[in-house]
Amino acid sequence: MIFPELYKEYEKYLNDELRSYEQDSLLQPIAYIMHLPAKRIRAVLVLLGYNLVKPDIQSALPIAHAYELFHNFTLMHDDIMDEAATRRGQPSTHSKFGLNSAILSGDALMVIAFQYLQQNLDPAMSPKIWKHFNSLALEVCQGQQMDLDFEAKARVSKEEYIEMIRLKTAVFLGHALRAGVIKAGGADSLADSLYQYGESLGIAFQIQDDYLDLYGNATETGKQKGGDILRKKKSYPVSAFFAKASNQHIADFSNIYTSYTTDEAIVEAAINLFSYYDIAGETKSEVARLYSLATASLDACDLSPDKKDRLDVLKSWLQGRNK
Amino acid sequence: MIFPELYKEYEKYLNDELRSYEQDSLLQPIAYIMHLPAKRIRAVLVLLGYNLVKPDIQSALPIAHAYELFHNFTLMHDDIMDEAATRRGQPSTHSKFGLNSAILSGDALMVIAFQYLQQNLDPAMSPKIWKHFNSLALEVCQGQQMDLDFEAKARVSKEEYIEMIRLKTAVFLGHALRAGVIKAGGADSLADSLYQYGESLGIAFQIQDDYLDLYGNATETGKQKGGDILRKKKSYPVSAFFAKASNQHIADFSNIYTSYTTDEAIVEAAINLFSYYDIAGETKSEVARLYSLATASLDACDLSPDKKDRLDVLKSWLQGRNK
Repeated sequence: MIFPELYKEYEKYLNDELRSYEQDSLLQPIAYIMHLPAKRIRAVLVLLGYNLVKPDIQSALPIAHAYELFHNFTLMHDDIMDEAATRRGQPSTHSKFGLNSAILSGDALMVIAFQYLQQNLDPAMSPKIWKHFNSLALEVCQGQQMDLDFEAKARVSKEEYIEMIRLKTAVFLGHALRAGVIKAGGADSLADSLYQYGESLGIAFQIQDDYLDLYGNATETGKQKGGDILRKKKSYPVSAFFAKASNQHIADFSNIYTSYTTDEAIVEAAINLFSYYDIAGETKSEVARLYSLATASLDACDLSPDKKDRLDVLKSWLQGRNK
Repeated sequence: MIFPELYKEYEKYLNDELRSYEQDSLLQPIAYIMHLPAKRIRAVLVLLGYNLVKPDIQSALPIAHAYELFHNFTLMHDDIMDEAATRRGQPSTHSKFGLNSAILSGDALMVIAFQYLQQNLDPAMSPKIWKHFNSLALEVCQGQQMDLDFEAKARVSKEEYIEMIRLKTAVFLGHALRAGVIKAGGADSLADSLYQYGESLGIAFQIQDDYLDLYGNATETGKQKGGDILRKKKSYPVSAFFAKASNQHIADFSNIYTSYTTDEAIVEAAINLFSYYDIAGETKSEVARLYSLATASLDACDLSPDKKDRLDVLKSWLQGRNK
């Protein structure tokens, strides 16, 4: 758990807000997905952004909730599109309540997110808050669309891949921090620097995740080694390989799925082909570069050292995950 | 076409706004559904509401567009839930672009509707506009949920049925008129009376539609006579029958689908059972009562006679449709 004091405040608020949902067929699937154990990273980042400017986070809880609700709306609909039977170790919403409920309650969940965004919102602040939230909402849809489009493509460039993960997940961290700062009446320059901090961390974390999937210790990650390769996912290492590899090696890569019979052998063959171009090293460097970029955004902020240290906890926590 | 001058202004604006959508895989399904021929009744009603207060409707076009976009979002997702292969005589969005596109582009369509709502919005007016739009959005989801829940029920009361059509379709007419008045800076009392006018008309029209489905002239309606009965839809006449009928007649009604072999005979049998309780007369009276209620709301408005006449055109047009 990260920022446990913020997490606990939010969990308490969340449970209160969802109390009446169980009685209503439209709201029940919303209560279900929201009650799955989660780190509440987006809500916590809104509260953290707010807390950098103002001490009492109570009035930021509705907007933090809006961000967390919106995130769960995307999960509910993405699970349908990805035909994911489970979510956080439990049946996904459509597996449990059916397709129609997951579509319709997902729609309602988005509307409710917008309602919480509006709650107790100072009218003077309203255009800025809405503009950013709307941008985020559309960006996340665009990211998911790119991800779906990738399935039909033989290869994806590094730039396209980074743009997809930026839109689909990374922008959310930046938006959450920025929204908290704006809600607290903080300076635009601070809000924007923290946006950059969050976005860079988000991209770095996603590429680090790709790295660990292929080169990490499966015992530590708890995932099947090379799962992305086996699912033919367009990850950062795969895009980096395509950018550098010879035609012969590209052809060899396409053939690993038929040339080898065990999962282990397929993954081994991919790692071997990638090693000709030091894809492991390149991926690691890219992760390091993005974490440095995040640090630079943080350095540029007009914040006291203790507040910068607090934000640095986020980076350390992301860097340390799944290692 | 109703209010052709408003319709034409909106169509021009709509075509301009959609011009760039064809190049983008996320936006293309949105352009598709928005370009299907439609009466644009919701956009037109926003413009009409605005026009009752201010002469130049240009600045109301984005908010009119927001209401029309939101309506089309509901159509895109409802067609998935209802497994509707066609929409306005063309393939429905999911039939043409696939399930995932219809879900995701539908989500984006809702977000874009929220973006247009915000466009050039006076911050002082913003909370009111947002509150009503959010209410509408959630009400429409609740109406669709009731409609889905009805499928699993053996019978539905008249009150439940009216609440469903109120939420699913009627509130939209009221909300559209009210939003136009608010955007133009009109009085709250006018905005609320026109909301009531629109909502009553919407319910009246829906029940009239149920009446005509069963008792209308199929040549004039262009629909199969008794289509609602054949699809086992919970319509107003069916609810009214259940409220009054003897147990024997209710049992007879359940059996018509197996006792008779042709569509005509099934519908004939239903009409015959309903005639014991004058369901036709009751349904007609309810439609008349609701149209009178609408007239009373209009009478209460602080508007010049020529403006009231203009609003009365809406009622006459709805009354005259499908007759």
